[in-house]
Amino acid sequence: MKKLCLLATGGTIACVPSNKGYVPGLSGDELLRYVPELAHYEDVAVHQIMNIDSSEMTPTDWQTLARACHRAARTYDGIVVTHGTDTMCYTAAALSFMLSDLRIPIVLTGAQIPLAAENSDAPANLIDAFIVASQADPGVQIVFNHKVIHGSRAFKMYSKNWDAYVSRNYPYLGRIDQGRFVREHQAKIQTGGKPLYSGLDDNVFLLKLSPATSPALLDYIGQDDYHGLLIEGFGTGGISNLNRGMADGLKRFNEELKIPVVLISQCPYDGVNLDVYGIGEQASSVGVISGNDMTTEAALVKLMWALGQTRDLGEIRRLIEKNVCDELSPRSEPQDLVLLD
Amino acid sequence: MKKLCLLATGGTIACVPSNKGYVPGLSGDELLRYVPELAHYEDVAVHQIMNIDSSEMTPTDWQTLARACHRAARTYDGIVVTHGTDTMCYTAAALSFMLSDLRIPIVLTGAQIPLAAENSDAPANLIDAFIVASQADPGVQIVFNHKVIHGSRAFKMYSKNWDAYVSRNYPYLGRIDQGRFVREHQAKIQTGGKPLYSGLDDNVFLLKLSPATSPALLDYIGQDDYHGLLIEGFGTGGISNLNRGMADGLKRFNEELKIPVVLISQCPYDGVNLDVYGIGEQASSVGVISGNDMTTEAALVKLMWALGQTRDLGEIRRLIEKNVCDELSPRSEPQDLVLLD
Repeated sequence: MKKLCLLATGGTIACVPSNKGYVPGLSGDELLRYVPELAHYEDVAVHQIMNIDSSEMTPTDWQTLARACHRAARTYDGIVVTHGTDTMCYTAAALSFMLSDLRIPIVLTGAQIPLAAENSDAPANLIDAFIVASQADPGVQIVFNHKVIHGSRAFKMYSKNWDAYVSRNYPYLGRIDQGRFVREHQAKIQTGGKPLYSGLDDNVFLLKLSPATSPALLDYIGQDDYHGLLIEGFGTGGISNLNRGMADGLKRFNEELKIPVVLISQCPYDGVNLDVYGIGEQASSVGVISGNDMTTEAALVKLMWALGQTRDLGEIRRLIEKNVCDELSPRSEPQDLVLLD
Repeated sequence: MKKLCLLATGGTIACVPSNKGYVPGLSGDELLRYVPELAHYEDVAVHQIMNIDSSEMTPTDWQTLARACHRAARTYDGIVVTHGTDTMCYTAAALSFMLSDLRIPIVLTGAQIPLAAENSDAPANLIDAFIVASQADPGVQIVFNHKVIHGSRAFKMYSKNWDAYVSRNYPYLGRIDQGRFVREHQAKIQTGGKPLYSGLDDNVFLLKLSPATSPALLDYIGQDDYHGLLIEGFGTGGISNLNRGMADGLKRFNEELKIPVVLISQCPYDGVNLDVYGIGEQASSVGVISGNDMTTEAALVKLMWALGQTRDLGEIRRLIEKNVCDELSPRSEPQDLVLLD
């Protein structure tokens, strides 16, 4: 029998009614008692790490949770983490980078309807999570609605639907079918690194562009205490107002301020490619680093992780472009378009 | 024979190679000449409004295009707009609000591969767009990969795939099948308003939250010249750090600065609902306006459109909560969760 551990952090799954709406209240022990099907897992150790709505989670909470996972990994064969659904993908990405040399499965799950309410998706998700924690490959993964998603590729597509998460630009790791984990893909986990790296630098600005974005915002970011900038650009890597001051602003980040700028796409699928269109070339020429097809969650955490190790721009570029926990697809070659006569 | 008009704005569809990658170059007339199947549409009027990558588009360009559509609507029975794919959803939303009392179809289309290259999706999209412009219902719509999407509900899901756009939280208007428009849904278009309203106030800040967002950013937004704030929160309406200063900052926007704050979801589907969880109640209690299930593109433009009419907070709330061009679903009732014993 595998030795399993439950780390409880709160979230909808643990919510109980209050006079201010539903708030996390059930403990990890109570979660287990609600689901009789889990009784055959003997001696599940339960640790209550926090009990909060995941919208409240900060990078400090990720570090607390990573340290708890690291400690538990010495004793247990698999870890289940109960977590709010709202920022579960950020946490999954964070644990993926902080615990890259992982020898056991860490399985995050939660629910769209509280466990304490009728017709909740929580029991099925908890049962599935324990199956995956005892049967699946090492690495951080999200288990939800019978699907298993690689931690650094998960994206919350639906705010309410039970089938909340998708695997972005990456195969699903598997599914749970009749009480068994069915593997569909094995992630490449880098081994040989530090078992725990928790030195994130969270002074990172996330900028989602719109056609109304003012280049003056770059001045604010540059003069405040930010050490990195992640831009969600348009399509394959368009940056608005590039000809109207944005390019000069970003050039200053690169040459004068030495603040790394990583560019990803607002489109959930396919990522950026700065080598095809003039607009991408412009971004590339002022030193912007391509985030390729990373999710916003993975790219944000990866920039914090890189900045935690170094402030050297060249070194940060190398770290961002390196595939650490299968968060990044191989760089696609520019399409060679054949012109019509 | 319907009288049709082509308004060309540039984009990938019009791209030609340059020493800096692909840049818009073909004119509207050249686009038509590339597609022999369009020859049977006689006397198509062509107006070159601009010729740019759509990542470069600003609200001023939307206004220019809206005025051109308004003029063309006096003479023509349908309008095709060729447009870059990257910000097509922003422009479609903008035209939807600026031309709400529209009696003809305005059909935006473009391509993922330039028309001048082999194996382009441009000819099929252009042919489909002309079919929809002559056969479909009035209103702004995007035609792409044989699908017809309501202008205020379109979202670019794929940065490279030909099936680039989806209809978010709304049925597809229809599809093109064997040269005919097949209607699947008829949008509710408000009539009786101004035929052209172009007074957008684009001093709006788009803030996509992350678990690392610093509440200090609110001070910057509040002291700079922004008149409105659109927040992409977590899940059904979570705001990070709410207990750590964000709530107080937003309360100040409402009570002291009188700057409207609209909250939508980072999740593409299902939208926000501030009535269920404690974290949503907190946002609601400090005066945040629910953007329900609007797309980021529609919510951003709608806030500009509302601010163009008034700076009164109550009036702005009324405008944001009102369904103008089927950009908003009826507000869903809070789920009545039944507790287990």
